[in-house]
Amino acid sequence: MTNGSGLMDRVADRVSVYEVSPRDGLQNERSIVPMSAKLELISALVDAGLSRIEATSFVSPKWIPQLADADELFKALRRPPGVTFSALCPNPRGLERARAAGVQEIAVFVSASETHNKRNVNMSIARSLEGFEDTIGPAREAGMSVRGYVSCVWGCPFEGEISADASLRIAKKLIELGCYQVSLGDTIGAGTPRQTVRIMERMLAEIPVDALAMHMHDTRGTALANVLVGLELGVRHFDASVGGLGGCPYAPGAAGNVATEDLVYMLHGMGVATGLDLELLVHAGRVAESVVGRALPGKVHQSGVRIRRG
Amino acid sequence: MTNGSGLMDRVADRVSVYEVSPRDGLQNERSIVPMSAKLELISALVDAGLSRIEATSFVSPKWIPQLADADELFKALRRPPGVTFSALCPNPRGLERARAAGVQEIAVFVSASETHNKRNVNMSIARSLEGFEDTIGPAREAGMSVRGYVSCVWGCPFEGEISADASLRIAKKLIELGCYQVSLGDTIGAGTPRQTVRIMERMLAEIPVDALAMHMHDTRGTALANVLVGLELGVRHFDASVGGLGGCPYAPGAAGNVATEDLVYMLHGMGVATGLDLELLVHAGRVAESVVGRALPGKVHQSGVRIRRG
Repeated sequence: MTNGSGLMDRVADRVSVYEVSPRDGLQNERSIVPMSAKLELISALVDAGLSRIEATSFVSPKWIPQLADADELFKALRRPPGVTFSALCPNPRGLERARAAGVQEIAVFVSASETHNKRNVNMSIARSLEGFEDTIGPAREAGMSVRGYVSCVWGCPFEGEISADASLRIAKKLIELGCYQVSLGDTIGAGTPRQTVRIMERMLAEIPVDALAMHMHDTRGTALANVLVGLELGVRHFDASVGGLGGCPYAPGAAGNVATEDLVYMLHGMGVATGLDLELLVHAGRVAESVVGRALPGKVHQSGVRIRRG
Repeated sequence: MTNGSGLMDRVADRVSVYEVSPRDGLQNERSIVPMSAKLELISALVDAGLSRIEATSFVSPKWIPQLADADELFKALRRPPGVTFSALCPNPRGLERARAAGVQEIAVFVSASETHNKRNVNMSIARSLEGFEDTIGPAREAGMSVRGYVSCVWGCPFEGEISADASLRIAKKLIELGCYQVSLGDTIGAGTPRQTVRIMERMLAEIPVDALAMHMHDTRGTALANVLVGLELGVRHFDASVGGLGGCPYAPGAAGNVATEDLVYMLHGMGVATGLDLELLVHAGRVAESVVGRALPGKVHQSGVRIRRG
């Protein structure tokens, strides 16, 4: 798989995809999606081979009414062997609910931008990180895995560009607190390839490659170009959402999360294994469209996988 | 602009963008667009700084009724200094019309797939290339520049994958016949990055870099990732269409041409100069939407350029 240019020499033979559509995808939907529809979506994701799925969030129903059924949803989930369902848990109260629901993996989140973090959870980044000690520690003691999110790594809607060093400090702290992996997010979909080289080289210099994931948004069409840079630097964990479900809250109608089927189309085209069935991912993208009742911005579920007609 | 990885070392400081929306973008529109609307679109393109614009096609009005106003359009065009308007010319009859209209640059086209060429122009690739002798020669003698298109280089809807050697032979022949540049097209938007490395390395081994352009489609979301590979290999000429105008005729509703504003957002974000005004390109994308009366698939004209709110 090498070539004269040496461009793709560090691309992994296999990467893992972390699916966020049921949580990150649905959380900004205005109309409440019935639990049966959520279960149908999750079932389509499992059928496509996804084994790491963020199913919901144990936040206060007052914050996100869409995910108020988290406890019930986890009870109703079909849980095939080898599939890990995770849930976002912002605080010890959420952790208690997650534990009662039998959740194996939780995720915590913080922004790399002070202003964004303040607007999102009404506290400073330092205060968020301190608070995680009361969530991550007990979660680990209860036998759960913990994943961390850092948002706005590629830019903030309030502060503009964010320094890679600021994001790195937060990512390292999350790992020190007990996260097995930190997912770095281009929350506003502003990232471009040279910026991605700068950010990811800085991260990879101090964090083991398997402790890093990239969570790219396609708001300005650059998601897969940024993923390609990650691949070229050896990154092997990527977040995605079928259909591209999960709009950009800052630009209604614009694309948000990179679509799982678009990511996987590119990976398979590059000979990178994912363990996923692309045709069934396309089907899951169409299920996601029916769940929210509108067309979604992902490409491959619209064009189809096959390049030949008929 | 170098970095530790050496990934972006060969990226050019400046690239040129060849705009195809008035011709390639509009030719598959069902409803006839009035000439005044076409002129408005072209005017917005010029205002954004585009200096190479494919304005129309001198094909038989029976083939493409949408472009039947080519002669009139060229007469009505405002022609600012430094802007080259080109037109597709499939044959000597088209060339005669182009010459009468005062066209400075024409383009000829052929597919890298025998089946696709047959279905498109009802002749073999060899016959197409022979026929070009009667168009390119006289055009050059009349002082016109000639550009060549090779379509289906990244795959054919009828034949599947196309060998890079087959495309290379055609591209070299076009240059031998007098084309100053050959634009290689991913007509069905199937391309993935390792394939792009293979194809473009093969081309660059035998064709000077300035005689090559890439014409990528975003049908499966991979256009900018493939452009990035081209940039990393030193390619510095790219075709695009504002708003992503120019659907994929094989999958109605799916995306076709990469959007000029998405391409330029990425290039400027990488510090690559284009001479274009991105905000005015976004405006041109919106003009393109109003010209065809529907939303177009490009991203940046939907999200906006700025990453800060307010």
